[in-house]
Amino acid sequence: MDSRFTEYADLIIRVGVNLRPGQTLVLSCPVECADIAHVLTEKAYDAGAREVVLRWNDEVITRMKYLRAEDSVFDEFPKWLETLFYEYADRGAALLTIYAEDPELLRGVDPGRIQRWGRASGQKLKAYQERQMANEFQWNVVSVPTKKWARSVFPSVSEAEAVEKLWDAIYHALDLRESGTVDAWREKIKLLGSRAQKLTDYNFQKLIYQNSLGTELTIELPENHKWVGVGEQAKNGAVFAANLPSEEVFTVPKRIGVNGAAVSSKPLALNGTLVRDIRMRFEGGKIVDAFASEGLETLLKSLDLDEGSRYLGEVALVPYHSPISLMNLVFNNTLFDENASCHLAYGSAYPCFKDEPSREEMLARGMNDSMNHIDFMVGTEDLSITGVTQDGRTVPVFANGDFAF
Amino acid sequence: MDSRFTEYADLIIRVGVNLRPGQTLVLSCPVECADIAHVLTEKAYDAGAREVVLRWNDEVITRMKYLRAEDSVFDEFPKWLETLFYEYADRGAALLTIYAEDPELLRGVDPGRIQRWGRASGQKLKAYQERQMANEFQWNVVSVPTKKWARSVFPSVSEAEAVEKLWDAIYHALDLRESGTVDAWREKIKLLGSRAQKLTDYNFQKLIYQNSLGTELTIELPENHKWVGVGEQAKNGAVFAANLPSEEVFTVPKRIGVNGAAVSSKPLALNGTLVRDIRMRFEGGKIVDAFASEGLETLLKSLDLDEGSRYLGEVALVPYHSPISLMNLVFNNTLFDENASCHLAYGSAYPCFKDEPSREEMLARGMNDSMNHIDFMVGTEDLSITGVTQDGRTVPVFANGDFAF
Repeated sequence: MDSRFTEYADLIIRVGVNLRPGQTLVLSCPVECADIAHVLTEKAYDAGAREVVLRWNDEVITRMKYLRAEDSVFDEFPKWLETLFYEYADRGAALLTIYAEDPELLRGVDPGRIQRWGRASGQKLKAYQERQMANEFQWNVVSVPTKKWARSVFPSVSEAEAVEKLWDAIYHALDLRESGTVDAWREKIKLLGSRAQKLTDYNFQKLIYQNSLGTELTIELPENHKWVGVGEQAKNGAVFAANLPSEEVFTVPKRIGVNGAAVSSKPLALNGTLVRDIRMRFEGGKIVDAFASEGLETLLKSLDLDEGSRYLGEVALVPYHSPISLMNLVFNNTLFDENASCHLAYGSAYPCFKDEPSREEMLARGMNDSMNHIDFMVGTEDLSITGVTQDGRTVPVFANGDFAF
Repeated sequence: MDSRFTEYADLIIRVGVNLRPGQTLVLSCPVECADIAHVLTEKAYDAGAREVVLRWNDEVITRMKYLRAEDSVFDEFPKWLETLFYEYADRGAALLTIYAEDPELLRGVDPGRIQRWGRASGQKLKAYQERQMANEFQWNVVSVPTKKWARSVFPSVSEAEAVEKLWDAIYHALDLRESGTVDAWREKIKLLGSRAQKLTDYNFQKLIYQNSLGTELTIELPENHKWVGVGEQAKNGAVFAANLPSEEVFTVPKRIGVNGAAVSSKPLALNGTLVRDIRMRFEGGKIVDAFASEGLETLLKSLDLDEGSRYLGEVALVPYHSPISLMNLVFNNTLFDENASCHLAYGSAYPCFKDEPSREEMLARGMNDSMNHIDFMVGTEDLSITGVTQDGRTVPVFANGDFAF
């Protein structure tokens, strides 16, 4: 393992999770990355973890299940797994997820099975997801290379070399230094926070997107929305970073206030399938048409998971000339690709409101609700975004792919 | 992976588990052995599995937990894990366990923590264990080498070489052939069954053990007890082998009918600690004194887990010149070592009765009850066992370590 990994593990536990003494950590990790789990567990105990609970996963087993299990399996979310999520949420445990999926894991799998499993799990875990999205406890998503994922990013080199190159890419994307990485990220989180504050202060009525790829989109924002970056506060007071890396500031769109067309600027790793060249048309908030040059059936099954899947739940701004974007590398992994590009998400929204209203009130203001939350990338070098204030003034927010202010 | 492994996997799924079409398989496996889990999962789906559910474990994480988690963790068995066991038992799922423990995993760990965790889990899982021991569903325990376990068996060679040697030893112990292994094991199971029947027919009142190591023990057997070998029938009708390999025939002793001394003939891998040279003295069934040259505290904590831990729950006969025994290798793994030696178990008993009485009736006849079930080896080359029939006749059962008939 690279010596830089210790620094990375430190960053994850101290900044990403910001684990509190006496707090339980649930660590979700591929079995292929057991050595990574060992270092993270050690660091978590160093930080005073009450206990580190592992939730292992394995893509070979997952793929076999999708291909060979009985059909009824995909309609029944097991009770024990449901219990696991709520038991640790009730305990205030922090959740750390190693996201390192083979983007083509489920190639050839019946998209109906994926959708049904998504629905079965979504129904049982919806209340949990809401609690997570409301930052009831710290949660953090990071990535480490797996062989299959690395090969999808670097298909022309050997597996071992691909893994090496992906490690380098991840360290570069995280600006990982010999030392001082934790402080550097704390600074960056502050910067994202002040950027978000600026946008919140504008109190835009709507945003108007335009680029040469065909995105022509108006997105209304709800009353009292606020923009946020990573560096949010959990109920226990700990400030954490839900994603590492993170370059975005984001807010909640108005469910029925989205009109026009959005065109994806990067492939989307969706449910084990790469979806390319997405084109969506919105009317009164709803995605009424969706196309893709590859993976269309997977996309459509995802959009039909529930009613809320056809409405936007997130609008996020990332400069085209952000550090990850400048690497000019498609990661086939949303954690990195969304932080290299302005993006939107269809499905559920993060409750980004200044005045902390009740969930009912948030929904009434136009926040979307769904079992899904799928980010897709729309940023380009020539993207312009114009903000329209409450009194009708226009403010350039993005010009030529970057913040205009 | 050795080409013989396919044959081994076949044996496990078809003879060990004898998985029925449409049945769920729960596979418990160390993350280090993921490649093994993949082959077994494939074979299970070949056999028509409804679904294969993985329960991964990892010894590095387990050891860290014992050394570093908060104290209260060891008193609370998590609800989700309890739910997992009962949910799949209720579904009639089969259980396959890869048992490949580092016998020194918990060296240096506070035995009090091990005991408290044993008690917390034992209390929640006692009803489950009873259902398993009554063969409500098929269950099977097998082993594959892990690095740490292999090094404990072959400490003087490299880790890679130790793993190779342990694979060879396992294949030898299982008499694994290029082909025909499944049929050979079906034959062996029949042989063990007829050996058990012979012993059942004797209907012994008691057995008297004697050898030069110091074992001088009388074990009374309850009314209507029966002897069994692997090859029992689950509720769904499937005949399965709970252990592979298996050389034993066993029955239930009478709780309060054990008197004298038992001396262990092999080290016992107990809760991550090797316990050597056990000497126990029984009075009216109860272990009133226990000694060990190594691991005594671990042994005592285990004996004090609950009241039933100080009474015997199994008496098992294995010829000294059985195939595994002839290998002259200490595996530091009870699955192999108990099948190379006559053994006893303290703790709960398998319900081995001819007339299938109720659990209450079995307890009334003298069957022991506990959260524990720990096998330990007492067979030697000069062990003699004399059976005493109901009418007071003596019958030589073992002479010079082997069956006398």
